[in-house]
Amino acid sequence: MQALLESILDDVRPLLGQGHVASYIPALADVDPHQLGIAMLGTDGALYQAGDADTPFSIQSISKVFSLVQAISHGGESLWERLGHEPSGQAFNSLVQLEFEKGRPRNPFINAGALVIADINQSRYAAPILSMRDLVRRMTNNVHIISDRVVAESEYQHRARNAAMAYLMQSFGNFHNDVEAVLKSYFHHCALTASCVDLVRGFSFLANGGRCLHSDEHILTPRQTQQVNAIMATSGLYDEAGNFAYRVGLPGKSGVGGGIVAVVPGRYSICVWSPALNASGNSLVGMAVLEKLSEQIGWSVFSPLSY
Amino acid sequence: MQALLESILDDVRPLLGQGHVASYIPALADVDPHQLGIAMLGTDGALYQAGDADTPFSIQSISKVFSLVQAISHGGESLWERLGHEPSGQAFNSLVQLEFEKGRPRNPFINAGALVIADINQSRYAAPILSMRDLVRRMTNNVHIISDRVVAESEYQHRARNAAMAYLMQSFGNFHNDVEAVLKSYFHHCALTASCVDLVRGFSFLANGGRCLHSDEHILTPRQTQQVNAIMATSGLYDEAGNFAYRVGLPGKSGVGGGIVAVVPGRYSICVWSPALNASGNSLVGMAVLEKLSEQIGWSVFSPLSY
Amino acid sequence: MQALLESILDDVRPLLGQGHVASYIPALADVDPHQLGIAMLGTDGALYQAGDADTPFSIQSISKVFSLVQAISHGGESLWERLGHEPSGQAFNSLVQLEFEKGRPRNPFINAGALVIADINQSRYAAPILSMRDLVRRMTNNVHIISDRVVAESEYQHRARNAAMAYLMQSFGNFHNDVEAVLKSYFHHCALTASCVDLVRGFSFLANGGRCLHSDEHILTPRQTQQVNAIMATSGLYDEAGNFAYRVGLPGKSGVGGGIVAVVPGRYSICVWSPALNASGNSLVGMAVLEKLSEQIGWSVFSPLSY
Amino acid sequence: MQALLESILDDVRPLLGQGHVASYIPALADVDPHQLGIAMLGTDGALYQAGDADTPFSIQSISKVFSLVQAISHGGESLWERLGHEPSGQAFNSLVQLEFEKGRPRNPFINAGALVIADINQSRYAAPILSMRDLVRRMTNNVHIISDRVVAESEYQHRARNAAMAYLMQSFGNFHNDVEAVLKSYFHHCALTASCVDLVRGFSFLANGGRCLHSDEHILTPRQTQQVNAIMATSGLYDEAGNFAYRVGLPGKSGVGGGIVAVVPGRYSICVWSPALNASGNSLVGMAVLEKLSEQIGWSVFSPLSY
Repeated sequence: MQALLESILDDVRPLLGQGHVASYIPALADVDPHQLGIAMLGTDGALYQAGDADTPFSIQSISKVFSLVQAISHGGESLWERLGHEPSGQAFNSLVQLEFEKGRPRNPFINAGALVIADINQSRYAAPILSMRDLVRRMTNNVHIISDRVVAESEYQHRARNAAMAYLMQSFGNFHNDVEAVLKSYFHHCALTASCVDLVRGFSFLANGGRCLHSDEHILTPRQTQQVNAIMATSGLYDEAGNFAYRVGLPGKSGVGGGIVAVVPGRYSICVWSPALNASGNSLVGMAVLEKLSEQIGWSVFSPLSY
Repeated sequence: MQALLESILDDVRPLLGQGHVASYIPALADVDPHQLGIAMLGTDGALYQAGDADTPFSIQSISKVFSLVQAISHGGESLWERLGHEPSGQAFNSLVQLEFEKGRPRNPFINAGALVIADINQSRYAAPILSMRDLVRRMTNNVHIISDRVVAESEYQHRARNAAMAYLMQSFGNFHNDVEAVLKSYFHHCALTASCVDLVRGFSFLANGGRCLHSDEHILTPRQTQQVNAIMATSGLYDEAGNFAYRVGLPGKSGVGGGIVAVVPGRYSICVWSPALNASGNSLVGMAVLEKLSEQIGWSVFSPLSY
Repeated sequence: MQALLESILDDVRPLLGQGHVASYIPALADVDPHQLGIAMLGTDGALYQAGDADTPFSIQSISKVFSLVQAISHGGESLWERLGHEPSGQAFNSLVQLEFEKGRPRNPFINAGALVIADINQSRYAAPILSMRDLVRRMTNNVHIISDRVVAESEYQHRARNAAMAYLMQSFGNFHNDVEAVLKSYFHHCALTASCVDLVRGFSFLANGGRCLHSDEHILTPRQTQQVNAIMATSGLYDEAGNFAYRVGLPGKSGVGGGIVAVVPGRYSICVWSPALNASGNSLVGMAVLEKLSEQIGWSVFSPLSY
Repeated sequence: MQALLESILDDVRPLLGQGHVASYIPALADVDPHQLGIAMLGTDGALYQAGDADTPFSIQSISKVFSLVQAISHGGESLWERLGHEPSGQAFNSLVQLEFEKGRPRNPFINAGALVIADINQSRYAAPILSMRDLVRRMTNNVHIISDRVVAESEYQHRARNAAMAYLMQSFGNFHNDVEAVLKSYFHHCALTASCVDLVRGFSFLANGGRCLHSDEHILTPRQTQQVNAIMATSGLYDEAGNFAYRVGLPGKSGVGGGIVAVVPGRYSICVWSPALNASGNSLVGMAVLEKLSEQIGWSVFSPLSY
């Protein structure tokens, strides 16, 4: 497996240089686009890694899964009164659909949905930023996980579109806390910094029936775990979820920091990272790595070969 | 397994009477809504059935999978130059997205996409209606499969919205044959009549690596098979694909005749049928049956339990 | 006045060469873009003309006013049950708004609205093409007015988008006749050929309380006349009606053949023609001519100076 | 004229009780809907009034004309780099169009456009709230005009949708000042309180070539005056501008406080007020009054009779 990972990274290295790193804030625009790392953690405990797998990066929208987990763990099904779990068929930050559907976001992985989740968690926790950071520390088994203040503050400075979405939802009665306060929490979650190795630990519960592999901590029930995987499979890669299902065939979640996590239920959590993005906002090289991995091991959940 | 199917049907029978049968054409509006059947075909050849599993019904949009298979088998990847494989996030027959995206349908399972597929097949086959009927006969192992002329002609009479979509795509250069001729082919495909037992045979290839279980006929390659399952998983149930993934967790395809097919890759093809539809146009009781089945056997592709 | 017209044409001639003639059908694409003509007809009978004012051109959407007149004259207010008289705020041929507003076009001067008007007239007249041609002959006082068959047939060949709109309206129950037949009528109306001098006669009724200046034929009541002027003022220049009101300040109607008619209520009908179009589909030089005319004579209906 | 006004009010009084007063903030919801007043001011100085013409009411969107005047008077044509003067064809507060057109509002009389105007004025004036109040005091010749603090604060509490629009424009670079500060200014402008008699004085410049009738103060040039009238004619009554042109035929501007001002260029400024609104957000009885007035005097700018 180790050899396979090394070999795949070698295969895709010529693609480094294609795509563009996220440039809407300076802190992300300055990242070296030639970095590339991958980690895989088996449910048997075996950890494989290659390339820059220990380098921390801005997890950005990958944090949306942790936020969803937090909201499910204290709210359960009632959560879905305020947002859906349907794919959006739109750019991740479009307001058109949000207005047409009266302030109810389609799913928790588009920005509007993640803001509703942040609003729900804001109502629940006295210190939402710290409680999320602590959850991620436990789930990644890394007490050094921090949120990058420079990134969080820069995102807040450039909050206009997210603020527009939050206020639009508030106008429909689907946002309960102070918009500015929730945005601050949200940007701190997005600014969490973790490595591929951290994230395969953090996502091991999705491959492991809802329990963290390293601590056996109960994160979600088996049925909730399966449901989170389902939402990742239909909505986890912005407006490229269908393509990811077609090419890779695994539940996944990406971030504009260039990370993509994916799950082989029952077997593996995977994280690949390379900062330059394709036109849909997903790691260009990361997509290529996961497609090769899926082809070579036959791991698609839509394939009989993996059973 | 037989007992389980009987038991689930008994559990959901109280729901019969809820929902509404499709009413846009008289031939569908007159169907008795209290019918309910299920069939399952294992890749080991075991066939289970319960209720009205031998009663033929109008397969409607389930035919879109057969049409896609036909287009893939002669066109391969070039197909995707003319349409996508992304979920639509819209009602199945919306024109808004189609105009915004310049006549390129999001996927082959919304009407616009199925019309492009029909246009592609129209260019390829001298007798598109017969060639499709014959394919379905072979795949279902039933030489008595026919297209219901009354239904097909009634659909043609009520073709206005589909005609609007076809002409809109033609205006963008993405429709090559005579619109009226393609619509006739398309409606004949939709009007094919088959039972649950027919359809589990017809979809066995998707559970069986691309080969028909009864004939071992090669329909698609393993990778193509996995890809069709992926598209079904993200786009197979109109604007309820996310909910189906969340509640059931299997690739599936529904039709307004009340049928839903689903696939457990490597294991089973399933077909449930009950004519009354929910607000999203999917069989109301059929959804309930598949959810119970998924819960009780743990068959979601997003769950480690099924491995 | 004659000198003024000549002087304005001289002023704008340097603009000839800017813009682009309509190119969606060959018959329009071949028109020499350097032509420029203007005619004005006073309600006192005085006729002024300059440049290519006697050259016939394809009136295209200017015909929508004649069609509306025909529909009002036999249908009266009931007409407005099937379409509105609100500006559209959209490109003239968008389907988005039409779908959102359930097949009811916003006004009679966008294509969808004109198609509903054509459908209404199709129900009323045994020979809709001839009855329109005869009306325009009477109104222009020119028995030689004809519809250009080559243009009409070419438009029919390229009917896809208009067909999409008609079928979409039919799907909402707002289109009653055979789509193909109505489209043929519609394209024959658009293909009518007339000169600036013809058209100032044809539009004299709008400056003259509803009566043709040359024949005193009653076309509309004074109130209906004022209402048609109002619709032209808010919706007559595609998605540039606001700009036309702002810059020119007169009720007007344009066509992609490069003609623009305008009305000074109580005083003048005006027609300017130059084939090259601006980005909004209106005659680029024609707009400049009318703006200069409005500025130099102070004829805006929104100005006290003209009273 | 006095008798005519009285007679028209008597005619429409049976309509009082239809429609609904604006209810999005308590301060407006509590207004007695049975009030009705009208005032007319001739350019010869003659003032006519009937009913509750001296009762102050919340002018709301009528203030958008004063704000536009302020922006034109110091900015001139450069203003139109940031917004358009086209009708919107949408609800007054829709975000769809704003997103599609990349944060550039269609005109200054929809909320998004008025917010851009407020942003422009915020950049220009040290005390935007006071400078606007003082302008309105001068233009209405009433030093007692004030902004209702309760209304302004209540609007600010319910600012969510306007905030969403402002932030959306900021995300496109078309909003330069602090959103919260501009919203406060904007709501204070909307909360200005004036009577019909105040407003006919305040709008006399639009009937009088740009000069206040009572003071001869130069507000706008004649051409700018005509242009403001043109924008009012195409965009002044929310999504009912076309209907207002069709039924009344005068430049006008309405507010959700139930006021409507209208202008007969060269002759009269008119203000009618009755709080209950129709489905488009315009005074139900006010519309009826103006239609009757237009019919009985023949004042449409689209009619030759008034010349």
